[in-house]
Amino acid sequence: MKNIQINSSRLWHSLMKMAEIGATEKGGCRRLTLTDLDRTGRDLFVRWCEDAGCEVTVDIIGNIFARRPGKDLNRMPVMAGSHLDTQPTGGRFDGVLGVLAALEVVRTLNDHSVETDAPIEICCWTNEEGSRFSPAMMGSGVFAGIFDIDEILAKEDIDGVRLGDELVRIGYAGDAPVNGHKPESYFELHIEQGPILEAEGNTIGVVTAAQGQRWYEITVTGQESHAGPTPMARRKDALVAASAIVGEVNRIGHAYPPNACATVGFMQVSPNSRNVIPGSVFLTVDFRHPDNDTLSDMDSKIKAFCTQIVDDTGVEVDVVDFWHFPPTPFDEDCIAAVREGAVAHGYDHMDIVSGAGHDAVYLNSIAPTGMIFIPCEDGISHNETENASPRDCAAGCNVLLHAVLERAEKTA
Amino acid sequence: MKNIQINSSRLWHSLMKMAEIGATEKGGCRRLTLTDLDRTGRDLFVRWCEDAGCEVTVDIIGNIFARRPGKDLNRMPVMAGSHLDTQPTGGRFDGVLGVLAALEVVRTLNDHSVETDAPIEICCWTNEEGSRFSPAMMGSGVFAGIFDIDEILAKEDIDGVRLGDELVRIGYAGDAPVNGHKPESYFELHIEQGPILEAEGNTIGVVTAAQGQRWYEITVTGQESHAGPTPMARRKDALVAASAIVGEVNRIGHAYPPNACATVGFMQVSPNSRNVIPGSVFLTVDFRHPDNDTLSDMDSKIKAFCTQIVDDTGVEVDVVDFWHFPPTPFDEDCIAAVREGAVAHGYDHMDIVSGAGHDAVYLNSIAPTGMIFIPCEDGISHNETENASPRDCAAGCNVLLHAVLERAEKTA
Repeated sequence: MKNIQINSSRLWHSLMKMAEIGATEKGGCRRLTLTDLDRTGRDLFVRWCEDAGCEVTVDIIGNIFARRPGKDLNRMPVMAGSHLDTQPTGGRFDGVLGVLAALEVVRTLNDHSVETDAPIEICCWTNEEGSRFSPAMMGSGVFAGIFDIDEILAKEDIDGVRLGDELVRIGYAGDAPVNGHKPESYFELHIEQGPILEAEGNTIGVVTAAQGQRWYEITVTGQESHAGPTPMARRKDALVAASAIVGEVNRIGHAYPPNACATVGFMQVSPNSRNVIPGSVFLTVDFRHPDNDTLSDMDSKIKAFCTQIVDDTGVEVDVVDFWHFPPTPFDEDCIAAVREGAVAHGYDHMDIVSGAGHDAVYLNSIAPTGMIFIPCEDGISHNETENASPRDCAAGCNVLLHAVLERAEKTA
Repeated sequence: MKNIQINSSRLWHSLMKMAEIGATEKGGCRRLTLTDLDRTGRDLFVRWCEDAGCEVTVDIIGNIFARRPGKDLNRMPVMAGSHLDTQPTGGRFDGVLGVLAALEVVRTLNDHSVETDAPIEICCWTNEEGSRFSPAMMGSGVFAGIFDIDEILAKEDIDGVRLGDELVRIGYAGDAPVNGHKPESYFELHIEQGPILEAEGNTIGVVTAAQGQRWYEITVTGQESHAGPTPMARRKDALVAASAIVGEVNRIGHAYPPNACATVGFMQVSPNSRNVIPGSVFLTVDFRHPDNDTLSDMDSKIKAFCTQIVDDTGVEVDVVDFWHFPPTPFDEDCIAAVREGAVAHGYDHMDIVSGAGHDAVYLNSIAPTGMIFIPCEDGISHNETENASPRDCAAGCNVLLHAVLERAEKTA
């Protein structure tokens, strides 16, 4: 029974339907969390879940759970899902694949009239991307008790709009408690967002762990002044110092090959006028590595560099440790269930470490968790050209189905 | 007669009244060109001019001329003025001083019932700052025939609002032709916006020339991708390349001491998300030097560096020569008139080269032109803390009065 196949064309059709909501000219998707487009996407997803016979609940942070009942009323649900929100210039698969593959699992079980012991729940987690409201992986973080719900509801976007107000506005401020039910286990199918599976010619990545991450917010304060008559020697140019920090972040990333990643993704210059020496710059740093000690080394290096910049240039540099989670190994049994699924279907597969954070990382702290990766074209993600093949999406979904059934049938 | 004194407290009071329009918490001013606040400032200025008996006209680009008649109906007007618009986080004196000092000159002549041979015109030039609409020194540039009026009216701000529409909206799309009358001469009083007068203990800077300037717009195009799973070796990070350019601009500035200035004042990162490798960056470069050959060397250096960055990193770099004007010597007779004014009043003075561009630079191309500088505190300008003393403002205004009278009485 575990080797029944999902409906590949139905899955693809659902992915393409969802991709129409917020579709961009370059073939990508812009469906930022808690916007009108996010609401439209959520509404479509909820309708599909109800059509598949699921009971839908929404919790206080807007996470959506669509439950397919199990035979055993005492069993906790096997959960599977991901997120529907995208980056500002995102693609059609990041997150969406994991949610709609979980829906396809339920539809397939319906097609074959399979009754499972444990209930199955499709999850859509609020604001995984973290581009509009920080931090990322917010809904799953609240669900797992990592974040305080009141603090999260009070978060504001760059225009000062409050997250809690946006939840109410789009109709997804639910009444289910955020920690009201515990998963038996959790599975998430996702595109790799990196080049390894494609380079190695594998269809399935059996994700054994997620890299550790450290995020920083850095504010550089110099002195704004007229770009013409202010001699170079008297300047405190915040952008010159910030640019040196960007260079150092990049050097640190290259200093720990092949696994270290180091990125400045966001920078805001003030007052940002052509003929004014920048008075302040705000920037973010994202460090990742599978080994926590290396991550600590990277942390020391950037902090030492920022201290040096202050000494050298007289600008002020404020470094805030914004977010840190150590490398996360996933559950052995869940990893095994994923690997068995790949073997059972005859897919080429390999073990892999996730470079990105995923909702699965937080779920892993409260329940046995596993992840499945499939290749994405040229390893490109968080980009409108992000692409994955119908064949690979279907393969990932078949492995998800296998793993979910393994857990839902497992003796409790 | 040329040594009559202006009314220092009236000048200061007018400056402080104007500073209330767009006043910021930090004591500065935010009165961006062609905004509602700019209209309020213009309206106040026009009322003051009419109260002083002047006839006010507005030309097609919104420049305001307030005319005090002369005895000789055939004489062209001696003009004096500057601008009322400010930087986004600007100060209370940059531009405003030159306009209100010219008004104070007229008020003083009224007080003493002085009739001049030539008429005197107070000028307020549209959009000198260039922060909302580029390029800077727009109104004086159109007046001097440097810019094409239709091209300028079609300029858009960052929100896509058209300059011509904003002129109409705030009621300053006048009907006077842009080159309808030629000045006999032009004088502009301005804060130095640099540290030299203060450091040397001088009250008056006799401005002999303005530095040459080269402005560039640079677009760096890399490839946006997920910051987690994209290995360092496979990245084309536009911000890393842009930051290297910022560093090089700064090095070029330091390579030609003491007069070279080199600034990146504006930078926009796309998509500007914490966990996305930046796909593109737009930035501006501002080079200044009093010697044109040196400016050409600086030009060669930044272009060579950008070519090198392309070769080294694989990003694309597009460099646009956005604006260039060579170093501008002012008119010998006007310089002499300013110097004589400083001597006549017994002010400590020195010759100085303007680091900033000013409306006077464009006026200089169609009429004999001179400029007067006074110190500003710590040399800081384009900053909310920009400051000048009532005493120095009055001194500059007395010199302006002297120079204007010298020209208005001069045999035509």
